[in-house]
Amino acid sequence: MIRISVDVMGGDYGPEVTIAGAAIAQKHLPKVHFLFYGIDEAVEPVLKKYPDLLSVSHFYATESYTRMDEKPSQALRVGRGKSSMWHAIEAVKNGEADSCVSAGNTGALMAMSYFCLKMIAETERPGIAGIWPTLRNDSIVLDIGATIGASANQLVDFAVMGASMFRSLYNVEKTTIGLLNVGVEEVKGLDEIKKAGIILSKVQFEGLEYKGFIEGNDIGKGMVDVVVTEGFSGNIALKVAEGTAQQISELLKSAMRSSIFSRFGYLLSQSAFRKLKQKIDLDRVNGGVLLGLNGIVVKSHGSASASDFSSAIRIGYEMVNNELLKKIITDLQCFHEKKAIFLNNKGESVIDKETI
Amino acid sequence: MIRISVDVMGGDYGPEVTIAGAAIAQKHLPKVHFLFYGIDEAVEPVLKKYPDLLSVSHFYATESYTRMDEKPSQALRVGRGKSSMWHAIEAVKNGEADSCVSAGNTGALMAMSYFCLKMIAETERPGIAGIWPTLRNDSIVLDIGATIGASANQLVDFAVMGASMFRSLYNVEKTTIGLLNVGVEEVKGLDEIKKAGIILSKVQFEGLEYKGFIEGNDIGKGMVDVVVTEGFSGNIALKVAEGTAQQISELLKSAMRSSIFSRFGYLLSQSAFRKLKQKIDLDRVNGGVLLGLNGIVVKSHGSASASDFSSAIRIGYEMVNNELLKKIITDLQCFHEKKAIFLNNKGESVIDKETI
Repeated sequence: MIRISVDVMGGDYGPEVTIAGAAIAQKHLPKVHFLFYGIDEAVEPVLKKYPDLLSVSHFYATESYTRMDEKPSQALRVGRGKSSMWHAIEAVKNGEADSCVSAGNTGALMAMSYFCLKMIAETERPGIAGIWPTLRNDSIVLDIGATIGASANQLVDFAVMGASMFRSLYNVEKTTIGLLNVGVEEVKGLDEIKKAGIILSKVQFEGLEYKGFIEGNDIGKGMVDVVVTEGFSGNIALKVAEGTAQQISELLKSAMRSSIFSRFGYLLSQSAFRKLKQKIDLDRVNGGVLLGLNGIVVKSHGSASASDFSSAIRIGYEMVNNELLKKIITDLQCFHEKKAIFLNNKGESVIDKETI
Repeated sequence: MIRISVDVMGGDYGPEVTIAGAAIAQKHLPKVHFLFYGIDEAVEPVLKKYPDLLSVSHFYATESYTRMDEKPSQALRVGRGKSSMWHAIEAVKNGEADSCVSAGNTGALMAMSYFCLKMIAETERPGIAGIWPTLRNDSIVLDIGATIGASANQLVDFAVMGASMFRSLYNVEKTTIGLLNVGVEEVKGLDEIKKAGIILSKVQFEGLEYKGFIEGNDIGKGMVDVVVTEGFSGNIALKVAEGTAQQISELLKSAMRSSIFSRFGYLLSQSAFRKLKQKIDLDRVNGGVLLGLNGIVVKSHGSASASDFSSAIRIGYEMVNNELLKKIITDLQCFHEKKAIFLNNKGESVIDKETI
């Protein structure tokens, strides 16, 4: 049995979407069991609509829920021990659930998860890993918005955790890694990225193949399996990709409506357009995974549909099914040991020297 | 007469493309005169193919040229006073040319321009402004890769210069400005963006309307005329947009080839696809403008075609025709005065307090 705690109140539409999403997910996930957390009056009427869920779920009424516009610090202060989001996360901490899924306020989810689950030993800050559809297969990009700015050590940890996640999800042995950078030589302010690059290229680690720096346009080509960056540029990259896809789709629609020929052409090509939509559909891969914590927390888009939310649940399920957390903890520990040996032999000064 | 100095050797293809590009541009730009800088043996044979250029250009043979892979510091050291890139920039400094266009090494172009032309008084570092096609009209995004990291003052200067450029290019009176940010509240490391936001919202400046923070997906919607960000995230945003457009175009092509119906549909819709391509074609708007220097320098894509390079020349021409440099210098001076009054009245401490 894989037990998933769901912050039923989270997201723009609350229980109507999250419970419907759970009902969809249930059909595809044989071993799933849900722990639903939410406000009684809001959840009960919706739950009644899905009798199939009864046998695979348990509902826990909570005192409050975290609003989408609450500031993280405030959400933590007033929601701690009370809100549906808090309880869903705490269920993971207490071993009652194997992973937690929420479409709620990202900042609050980050703050509560960080506070409640704590970081894995020797890691500094969590990152959010997102799945990015590319011309080859899906890639993983992290951090897409958890932590602004990142030290070389954090970037390296992101690389290791991203690789663990990639191998968990896609069942491969070797994972390629790229550090997101800009193409200009000798630029300032990127010392942490350069240092991370040196560590990743010098510390040999089974299953992880460091490919060097990549640029923004390499992500969509699927040049590497895991793209590592700090949260500010990662979030901007993600949002720009979404925006560009949206923009092209609107331009395409209006172009196809522009003449009688193209309208007819559109009718003939509908299956092709459906195929395209599916390939670039970010909702298909809805669900960012918070990595670095002592527990798996999956963040769904706030505006997710029931079907999108079911994708986030599926990701939370797969992560447990493939023992992601165990892999991450083992991989990080092993990498940190190798890194320590490298740094002791060479000294940090080598890194500083090489970056100049 | 508008005199444009061209680093003929720059770019992946050198004179074959740059001179062909000049020949295309010449047909559309009534008052243009070219100053070509390059290696004699490489340029002369190509120039001969374009007799129409003879009457509107002068060729200056140079000792060397800057290679695409040279490090900026090295390019400056060995190319100063010698390379075609240097001479093209110096022509602007000496008042022999009104603007300079190069498809060469970005870092070298930045370094040489900075060294040769110097910054406009009271500005710190240059930014590169790019034109970004959106669902509404074209927007301007800066900095797309000149300077990594930016202080609040630099971001504010980018906003003022971007607005001057937008008004120059599109002949409008009011320009809307947005600061690129991530959606998460209370994030760390963004103090400079927050400070810039306070200055832009508090200092009233005619023709400039500050709209607050925008996210990556707002750029493609054309939510504001000018998007301001520091060079690292700006470059990643630009490259991700290019990559996503490329990715969708490839997926679309392969989807349209997937069945006999869609192939026929494609034939019927060709004019629609051409329309789409034109709308999202970044080459149409090829040419990043270095802003903040005492002179106009336009950077073309290194891989530009002749037609793309002619776009960069057109941008260099328009900037002069619309007196961009004069506008920028006046606007910056005026804004700096207003900013000083605001800061003296309120003190910098107000800004620091408001950002907490």
